[in-house]
Amino acid sequence: MKRHVLSILVDNHAGVLSRITGLFSRRGYNIDSLSVGGTETEDISRITVVVICDDDAIDQIIKQVEKLIDVRRVVDMSTRRAVFRELSLIKVGCTDKNRGEIVSIVDIFRANIIDVTAESMTIEMTGNQQKIESFIMLMEPFGIKEVVRTGLTALCRGNNPIKNYSHNI
Amino acid sequence: MKRHVLSILVDNHAGVLSRITGLFSRRGYNIDSLSVGGTETEDISRITVVVICDDDAIDQIIKQVEKLIDVRRVVDMSTRRAVFRELSLIKVGCTDKNRGEIVSIVDIFRANIIDVTAESMTIEMTGNQQKIESFIMLMEPFGIKEVVRTGLTALCRGNNPIKNYSHNI
Repeated sequence: MKRHVLSILVDNHAGVLSRITGLFSRRGYNIDSLSVGGTETEDISRITVVVICDDDAIDQIIKQVEKLIDVRRVVDMSTRRAVFRELSLIKVGCTDKNRGEIVSIVDIFRANIIDVTAESMTIEMTGNQQKIESFIMLMEPFGIKEVVRTGLTALCRGNNPIKNYSHNI
Repeated sequence: MKRHVLSILVDNHAGVLSRITGLFSRRGYNIDSLSVGGTETEDISRITVVVICDDDAIDQIIKQVEKLIDVRRVVDMSTRRAVFRELSLIKVGCTDKNRGEIVSIVDIFRANIIDVTAESMTIEMTGNQQKIESFIMLMEPFGIKEVVRTGLTALCRGNNPIKNYSHNI
């Protein structure tokens, strides 16, 4: 079992996201994270899905996703030179005494404080999954109140956008 | 028609994401963006959905989502004091001549350059939707090769996490 990151270019029609998530759930694959948003081309969205499965299963999944209506391109980013990033917002409990300590850790991780109250701070943090998980672990002693994560997003390194690839995978 | 941002806490079971996206597509609501990832509690995920619809429709959507299996909490973040953030990776064409100009704009927006080739740069940028769209517009003259966006994610300001809210909405 391995973590696979799929980038999927789709026509931005109602129903395409539902068809893709339905395909994963019908086959019993649990989606670890998913994010979908606009691209450089109007009416085309890009979905980034993280799924944990073995290599045989991912080949099957890619072939099935390719066949769905409104899907233009499927690329397994885990097998390519790519940059992977995730955004997380983390609300941590704090007191007058430990606020300085939290700020020091936030600075080391180049994260940003985006909201402060007398009893809590909300931190914005960008990085790969490992960096975000390390930061959350370091915050645990202070008391984590709330965490939201966008899930991974990814772009291939180099010049060539995936829409120009001559074939999928 | 207004942009609504829903935060949905769900049990992390296969199928819940598919049920939620299916509900939107069956009713003909197009999802503007969606992100889903882990939270502070193991086995609970948080989905942030942006949908453009009128106020009557959003009330109906919330009531329907609440009824779905594995859904624990639905909150309309657009009606609350909240922080909204999105992550975008942007690949821009560049030459020896204009690279410096791009770097200046990246610095003004407090974005980061995460990959460089002779002909392109990949930039990581965090902010609200407006900030990201302004940045992308400024990059257009240089030639945008590829954009991926996670979609909005959000946390309420203040101390109280949404899991402690006494009721939905």
